[in-house]
Amino acid sequence: MPRFPRFAERSDRITGSVYEKFRARMAAAGDDLVGLHIGDAYAPPPYPLPIDATFMRTNAGFHRYCDTFGIPALRDALVTKLGEDNAIQVSSDNVLVTAGATNALSATVAALIDEGDDVMMLSPYWPFFRGMVRAAGGNVIEVPFYTRLYHEPDVFAMLDARVTPKTAAIYLNSPNNPSGKVLTRAQLEAIGRFARLNDLWLISDEAYDGMTFDGRSHISPGSLVGMFERTVSVFTFSKLFMFAGLRLGYAVAEASVVRAINKAMVHQLYGPSTIAQQMMIEPVRTRGLWSGRFVAECQSIRDRVAQALRIEAPIPEGAYYFFFPITGYLRSREYTEVIDELLDAGVSVAPGEDFGADFASWIRICFAGEATQRVLLGVERLNRILAG
Amino acid sequence: MPRFPRFAERSDRITGSVYEKFRARMAAAGDDLVGLHIGDAYAPPPYPLPIDATFMRTNAGFHRYCDTFGIPALRDALVTKLGEDNAIQVSSDNVLVTAGATNALSATVAALIDEGDDVMMLSPYWPFFRGMVRAAGGNVIEVPFYTRLYHEPDVFAMLDARVTPKTAAIYLNSPNNPSGKVLTRAQLEAIGRFARLNDLWLISDEAYDGMTFDGRSHISPGSLVGMFERTVSVFTFSKLFMFAGLRLGYAVAEASVVRAINKAMVHQLYGPSTIAQQMMIEPVRTRGLWSGRFVAECQSIRDRVAQALRIEAPIPEGAYYFFFPITGYLRSREYTEVIDELLDAGVSVAPGEDFGADFASWIRICFAGEATQRVLLGVERLNRILAG
Repeated sequence: MPRFPRFAERSDRITGSVYEKFRARMAAAGDDLVGLHIGDAYAPPPYPLPIDATFMRTNAGFHRYCDTFGIPALRDALVTKLGEDNAIQVSSDNVLVTAGATNALSATVAALIDEGDDVMMLSPYWPFFRGMVRAAGGNVIEVPFYTRLYHEPDVFAMLDARVTPKTAAIYLNSPNNPSGKVLTRAQLEAIGRFARLNDLWLISDEAYDGMTFDGRSHISPGSLVGMFERTVSVFTFSKLFMFAGLRLGYAVAEASVVRAINKAMVHQLYGPSTIAQQMMIEPVRTRGLWSGRFVAECQSIRDRVAQALRIEAPIPEGAYYFFFPITGYLRSREYTEVIDELLDAGVSVAPGEDFGADFASWIRICFAGEATQRVLLGVERLNRILAG
Repeated sequence: MPRFPRFAERSDRITGSVYEKFRARMAAAGDDLVGLHIGDAYAPPPYPLPIDATFMRTNAGFHRYCDTFGIPALRDALVTKLGEDNAIQVSSDNVLVTAGATNALSATVAALIDEGDDVMMLSPYWPFFRGMVRAAGGNVIEVPFYTRLYHEPDVFAMLDARVTPKTAAIYLNSPNNPSGKVLTRAQLEAIGRFARLNDLWLISDEAYDGMTFDGRSHISPGSLVGMFERTVSVFTFSKLFMFAGLRLGYAVAEASVVRAINKAMVHQLYGPSTIAQQMMIEPVRTRGLWSGRFVAECQSIRDRVAQALRIEAPIPEGAYYFFFPITGYLRSREYTEVIDELLDAGVSVAPGEDFGADFASWIRICFAGEATQRVLLGVERLNRILAG
C-alpha cells in the first residue's frame, strides 16, 4: 500500500529517548537544574588527547552525549546552508544530525518502510540501500534509470512502468553514484509529480551535494513545490567535506518525520558524535571559501581520466566516478576473470552487479580516492587489460 | 524456537560490504595496488581542523573510511586488553569496533533476533535495548532480577520461571545500569548453565566494564567455560574512558558471529569513525595509568551521596547510579506529581518505569554526571521533596 504520510508500523513499536518527555521542562529550567537523570561523566577524559586545547576549552561537553537530534550550533549552521545552497527553507526542527548519510538512510528506512513494502530503487544505485530495504523486510523494485537518461527523455514513463500497489517509497540519488548523472530540474519535477500521484515517500540521497561539473547545479527535490512534506533529503560530510572518516551526515524533513527518524536512530547508536559535530560547525560556515577548489580539481581529474581511458564511458556530470560496461572488451573472457586479471595487474574496481541487476557487466572506478598520478597509473593498467 | 547457533533470518537477506569479497586479494596485493574501487577522497580536508598536526601526519587516512571491522591497531590493542582485563583470549577476528555500545547491541539484535522471537531481559534494564528488540519484531520477556539478588540466591530458578519455547536470547548487564548490582562468578555461571541448557544466545552488555567498587571484580561471562561461542560481549568508550561524545564501542564474539553483526552494522552506518578509533589506541594501552583514579573517585562520590541521601536505597556495587523505590515517600502524591515537584525544585531524575514494568515507582540518579557539589545539591533537593 502506498504509505505517505504514514510511518512504518515498526515506528509505533518503539519510543524515543526516555528523556524526550522532559526535554521542554529541562530546557526551560536553565542552569540551576541539577541533571541527575542522564548516565554520563561530568569530567573530561583524564588521558592525553590529540585535540587543540583551546577547542576543548571552548567546546565544553565535547566528551559528553549531546541532544540526539544534534547540537544546536551545527543544526543552525546547516539551516543556513540548506537555505543558501539547496533552496530548502527550514528551521532546526527539520534537521537531524546522523552518523553519516548511511545512518540517515538506514534510520529513514526503519522509520518509513514496513515488512512487505516495495521500494523503487532507481538504478544504478548505491548498493547498501538495497540491504537496508531488505533488512527492514521490504522488497526492492529496480528501475533502470540514470544511464538511460542520456537517450530516453520520459522519466515519468520509466517510473510508471514499474510501480506496484505495494510501493511505499522511491530511492533517488542525484548526483548519482555510480553513474555520475546529475538530474535536471525538469526530471526531478517529473519524479515529484509521480511521487505525489502515487502517494509515495521520496528518499533523496544527496551525498554528492555540491559536487557537480561544467557549471551544472545540484537541485534538491525537497525544494520543489509540493515536495518537502514527502521528501527526506540526506546529506553527508564524507564527500564535498572530504571527511568520510568522521562519520557525520544529516537528514532534512518535516519535523514529525525527523522525530520518527530520530526514534529509529537512537535505537541504532543513540546519538551522533558530539566532538565530530563541534569540529564541523566552522567548515559548514566557511564552505564557500574552500569547496569550489576541490570540485574544480575533481573536474580536472575527470577530464584527464576521460582523455586517458581507452574504454568507451559516459562523462560523469557530478560525483567522482566513471561507470561503464566492459562487454565490448571481454574478448571471450568471463567478467569475473577480467576483474581477477585487473587485480593481478594491480588495479581494483567496484563490480557493477552490486549497483543493480542490469549492470552485471559494468565496472565503477573512483578518480578521487588516490593521488592523480596513481589514478592515471590505474587507468593505464585498466586500458592494458581491457583495451589490450 | 531457541536459536543458538543460528542467526536471524534477516541476516541472510543482506550481504556484507560489497568489498568484502576482495578483502584478502587486496590485502595480499600490497602498496602497488591502485585502489579505484572505493568512493573516497584521497586528500585530507582543506579547512582548518582542531587536531594536533603531528597526530594527523602520523595517522594517515584519519579522514578516510576504514575497514568496517575497525582499524587493525585498535583491534589489536583491544585483544590485549580483553586478555588482561576480561580473561577473554581472542584474536582480532573476534573484535568488531562499533559506534558505541548502543550500536554494538543494536547490530547484535539485528543479526540474532527474528520477528516473533522472545528475548529475556533481566530487569531493571537499560531502556533502549527494549526498543531494539521491538524494532526487530521480537518480544520482550521481563525477568525481575538484579534488585532481587540482594535477598534471593537462586538465579537459575528466576530465569527458569520465565523462559518460553520461543526464547532466543538473554540480555544481561553487569555491572547493572540502573541498579549498580555486580554479578558474582557463581551467579554468572548459573546464567551460563541456563543459557546452555536452553540453547540461548547471551547478549552481555558490559558498558560498565572496570567500574566496580569495594574491591569487587567485573567478570565477563564470555570468559566462562563453554560460554564464549554463545556470548556477544559488548563494551564502550563512554563510561570508564569518559568519552561518550566520541560514540565508540566494540563487540566481541566468535568470528562468524562478528561477521554477522558487521553485516548488520554496515547497513546502519557503514563503519565506525576512523579518527575516533585512532584517538583511542593510546588510551587503551595506558588505561592502567589513569582508570583507577576515576573509579576511586566514583566510589568516594558514591559514599558521600549514600551519606547525604535521606531515602532508603541499595548501595551500588558498580556503575554510577543509585536506583531506589520512592513508594514510602509519596505522602499521598502521585508518582508523576513528585517527578514534577522535583523538576520544580531544580533536580531531574530518570523515571523508573523506563527500566522495567516492576520499577514504575522507582527513580534513578546518576552521581557522576555533574560536579560533586552540584550532585550533593541535587540530593539535598531530592531529600526535601521526598523525605520532607
